[in-house]
Amino acid sequence: MRRLKLLLEYEGTAYHGWQIQPGLSTIQGILQDLLARLAGRSVQVTGAGRTDAGVHACGQVASFSADLRLDPATLRRALNASLPKDIVVRSVEEVPEGFDARRCAQARTYRYTILRREYPSACLGRHSLYVPYPLDAMAMVEAARVFVGTHDFSAFRAGSCTAKTPVRTILDASWRRVGDLWHFEIAGNAFLQHMVRIMVGTLLEVGRGRRTAADVAAVLASCDRRRAGKTAPAHGLCLMEVRYERESVVAH
Amino acid sequence: MRRLKLLLEYEGTAYHGWQIQPGLSTIQGILQDLLARLAGRSVQVTGAGRTDAGVHACGQVASFSADLRLDPATLRRALNASLPKDIVVRSVEEVPEGFDARRCAQARTYRYTILRREYPSACLGRHSLYVPYPLDAMAMVEAARVFVGTHDFSAFRAGSCTAKTPVRTILDASWRRVGDLWHFEIAGNAFLQHMVRIMVGTLLEVGRGRRTAADVAAVLASCDRRRAGKTAPAHGLCLMEVRYERESVVAH
Repeated sequence: MRRLKLLLEYEGTAYHGWQIQPGLSTIQGILQDLLARLAGRSVQVTGAGRTDAGVHACGQVASFSADLRLDPATLRRALNASLPKDIVVRSVEEVPEGFDARRCAQARTYRYTILRREYPSACLGRHSLYVPYPLDAMAMVEAARVFVGTHDFSAFRAGSCTAKTPVRTILDASWRRVGDLWHFEIAGNAFLQHMVRIMVGTLLEVGRGRRTAADVAAVLASCDRRRAGKTAPAHGLCLMEVRYERESVVAH
Repeated sequence: MRRLKLLLEYEGTAYHGWQIQPGLSTIQGILQDLLARLAGRSVQVTGAGRTDAGVHACGQVASFSADLRLDPATLRRALNASLPKDIVVRSVEEVPEGFDARRCAQARTYRYTILRREYPSACLGRHSLYVPYPLDAMAMVEAARVFVGTHDFSAFRAGSCTAKTPVRTILDASWRRVGDLWHFEIAGNAFLQHMVRIMVGTLLEVGRGRRTAADVAAVLASCDRRRAGKTAPAHGLCLMEVRYERESVVAH
């Protein structure tokens, strides 16, 4: 048995998210089916981030064990030749036996993109939320900083979230502007279900002048989901990167 | 009656090209249907470029006459609210009566994008041709220059092309690299059917070392379609810009 790590890119539009669900098309399900065919037996794939339905990934990481004799480059080619066009394997790497894409991940970075201009985009519409109304950028930058640090994020957590603890550490949360696109980039040790999308929904209310950074701090402190903003649509969100420490890989 | 000019962006993936065809979904057809509903009578829309099925546009220009009382900004909002998500009106402008998006166009710029890396892209796949094999960039740059000038482009013209003359003037034809993407950008007074795609198919053969720039010059001189390369796939192509001279607009 070999332990393998996949770096994945996918456009989530057509899928019911990462996690396998009976009767639904999911990234994990498609990968497991394909790997099982190649290996001749069932394969369990673990992903670093359980992206929601419609969420994209540029740098999702997955791990699995399988009896595959193909070298990493050939396996990548074989997988990309069989996968649907909107799921791509960027790299295949052999890793130590203890490596688990989920447990060993030290940090994840997500990006939420909004499109700011007078008309929507025919080509970027699948990857950004179109926001035509005026937004106070400085207020949104200030409010984003509230999230940085170790907090109980119960107010920014879906009712259906199954995580054992609502405490997460946010390393960075900032807005970056590239032409008509505003990127909200957030890095943390891990994220609760819908956490980034609820944050963005809340920050958009700050941008519209309906809340202040101080209000966001109060919402966070309240641990009350009802006090936070709406969950922003999935299609603006992308899992950009998952980071691992060499140590954690060998330690397991 | 007012004469109006639309600047359009569309993702061509889902459409049978610009031009209206009975029973098929086309950009022109969708615009004409929508404008007819708004105007309460049939509207004839003229496009600057008849993009093929699957070809995209960032800067298509269309003109039409209609009895619409909405101001340009409101009309743009109304159109974008009703159009499918992959067709967007970037601007609406009132123009002199004689303006015709097709006849008055002085120059059109197209871009063909190829993706050069070891794995395809889940997100850029709809807008670029994935080319995994080695390419000689310098040879392609040199061969592209062959197209510049006024020539009979019969060798780079689809059999079904209905243009009266095969003579076109190419103002610029060059390759530009942006990360993993190679853009072939070509500007000319007008283009024959499949012209850019046959050029790209031929340049890719140059990149693979199967032809030289001198071969391409000989193909051009031959006026024989059979001597040129394959027609590159539609999805790498985008109509970027159409240029007009103020004079030509008022002169009509």
